[in-house]
Amino acid sequence: MVKRTAPPPGPETSLPPDERFMALALAQAARGLGRTAPNPPVGCVLVQGDMVVGAGFHPAAGEPHAEVFALREAGDRARGATAYITLEPCAHFGRTPPCADTLTAAGVGRVVVAALDPNPLVAGQGVARLRAAGIEVVVGPGKAEALRQQAGFRSLVTRGRPWVVAKYAMTLDGKVAALNEGGGLVSSPAARERTMTWRNELDAIAVGRGTVGADNPALTTRGVPGGRDPRPVVFDRRARSAPDARLWRAGAVLVTGPEADTSAHKAAGVTVLRAEHLEEALTALGTLGLSSLLLEGGPTLLSAFLSAGLVDEVRVFIAPKLLGAGLSPLGDPVRSMHLAQSLRDVTTEQLGPDVLITGFLNDIPRL
Amino acid sequence: MVKRTAPPPGPETSLPPDERFMALALAQAARGLGRTAPNPPVGCVLVQGDMVVGAGFHPAAGEPHAEVFALREAGDRARGATAYITLEPCAHFGRTPPCADTLTAAGVGRVVVAALDPNPLVAGQGVARLRAAGIEVVVGPGKAEALRQQAGFRSLVTRGRPWVVAKYAMTLDGKVAALNEGGGLVSSPAARERTMTWRNELDAIAVGRGTVGADNPALTTRGVPGGRDPRPVVFDRRARSAPDARLWRAGAVLVTGPEADTSAHKAAGVTVLRAEHLEEALTALGTLGLSSLLLEGGPTLLSAFLSAGLVDEVRVFIAPKLLGAGLSPLGDPVRSMHLAQSLRDVTTEQLGPDVLITGFLNDIPRL
Repeated sequence: MVKRTAPPPGPETSLPPDERFMALALAQAARGLGRTAPNPPVGCVLVQGDMVVGAGFHPAAGEPHAEVFALREAGDRARGATAYITLEPCAHFGRTPPCADTLTAAGVGRVVVAALDPNPLVAGQGVARLRAAGIEVVVGPGKAEALRQQAGFRSLVTRGRPWVVAKYAMTLDGKVAALNEGGGLVSSPAARERTMTWRNELDAIAVGRGTVGADNPALTTRGVPGGRDPRPVVFDRRARSAPDARLWRAGAVLVTGPEADTSAHKAAGVTVLRAEHLEEALTALGTLGLSSLLLEGGPTLLSAFLSAGLVDEVRVFIAPKLLGAGLSPLGDPVRSMHLAQSLRDVTTEQLGPDVLITGFLNDIPRL
Repeated sequence: MVKRTAPPPGPETSLPPDERFMALALAQAARGLGRTAPNPPVGCVLVQGDMVVGAGFHPAAGEPHAEVFALREAGDRARGATAYITLEPCAHFGRTPPCADTLTAAGVGRVVVAALDPNPLVAGQGVARLRAAGIEVVVGPGKAEALRQQAGFRSLVTRGRPWVVAKYAMTLDGKVAALNEGGGLVSSPAARERTMTWRNELDAIAVGRGTVGADNPALTTRGVPGGRDPRPVVFDRRARSAPDARLWRAGAVLVTGPEADTSAHKAAGVTVLRAEHLEEALTALGTLGLSSLLLEGGPTLLSAFLSAGLVDEVRVFIAPKLLGAGLSPLGDPVRSMHLAQSLRDVTTEQLGPDVLITGFLNDIPRL
């Protein structure tokens, strides 16, 4: 079990230089989280000796790539520099020319890449192109964190659907809510603050009709400087959620069954997707360019996703209190589901009074 | 929230000297855990300059106190030494003369005490007696760990009942067992190993009739070098548990209602206690000299203890897996219990694949 730490905000002298400068590139990339889909969040740092001469990140699809910003800042100092890039530079002509060529043209002497790009249009060709131009390339430093940052992009480009992160908060006796009203919130302010950073970093946020009806949540990002709201997605097979619910803002998505009457939702400007089952629904969300989905729904929605094997990552806050009776995080079917799904790469973190436990049910797609 | 560490096995040079030597005394005391009731576990270390010249612990009621063993080992080197003692030396004549006087007679120059003795027969008089004899006394180093070690003694001497530690293991979706057979064990070997050290250190272990019927557990201490078994206690209001169950060994206790027929259990050599309610039952266990009780029962017993406010400490293993349907750690009454009991002094620890979360519902009695 690994104690996970956030990427360091500045160079940590105890790390090897490549890891240290890649941490800076990862911090750059993090600034684009939740803004770049369907593109990946990428950061780039250019280093001469021990000095950073250029840094940049990919801010949004349609904007220049991270390497371009870093090279612009560095100017002539890019010649002979080492470029730290959190994702393999592209080798294909998209909206911009191949970054591998741009780096070569700028005279960069060495390139360190955290992880290869699983996009079939790149897939090692960016690195091959650099090496063919005589540039030394190292792949691997900072890889684990890079994969986490790019989980959404990697899911979208290889599976055609968003990376799904299920989040819930429960008590030490496994309850997410009291059975009757007024039971109070399970999680602490620190846990809710962390949830807001996730809302800011993931493309979409999903709930079921039950949560809309019970809580009428806004599903906005609050208290995060420079934060932006994720796109709300409501899983509602029969389109019964109130069309005037708070979350129906611009960009909101209703995922419903093939025959539901969605005229009221459409009139409210909601995007309607129709799907027979959850995997089809996720693929439809992928076609909207959504690369990551924060599942904040109740027990029914979470159980449905888990049963279908569609939860990729789990983040659970545990509040050190005992509630007695209450709702379990997963809906209890009459017969045992026997999911018995074990989490991998488990991390724990103390967060205010709560404990955050995270882990993966599926692997982040890699080349 | 505090990350708790085990008492260091040897001197840690980063600690102040008093803390460092008290840690050695606490390690001595730990050797008596589970063996000294109704007496406290106590350790003593005698130090000249930077050198330990004597060490000892109280091994069992009726045996000499820790100070006596340490003084014996030190001999003449006790003169002018500093004595580190995990509990205030006694000031009264019990089975042995007052340790305060024995320390004075040995010419000890300074006494460091981790915590005062809440026993009304001592209660600060041990320290007063030493000071009256012109000996410098410091109280406090190592206090937190000393209180934990002495929780059972402190409960027994001030409340007349054992310190109750509830233990369970649950999945990340809050289930202690699958609904149907063959669900496998929730906790890991590392968690079970830790449970065995607790069984070795607590005086008694309690289950309800349901657990006896379902699992027929032996409730023994396995795999702990030099380990000894706790006394099994079965809470069984109508005395319906099978008299030939595995746990009915010498010293086993049946706690039952006023009118249950216990002839078969008595014939099997079981000690029978009768009580109307749980608090009365705990007081009866106190009269047997049991200072600590590890509650390993199922949801019904645990809920009953919690509802009565009789759980002092909680230790929960969380296995990072999702089970789906299953049993909750607390019995679900039809109406919400709304316990909403918050744990204090919460600690977390990674233990193999699991996370151990501990905390207190009641304070350890202190002077």
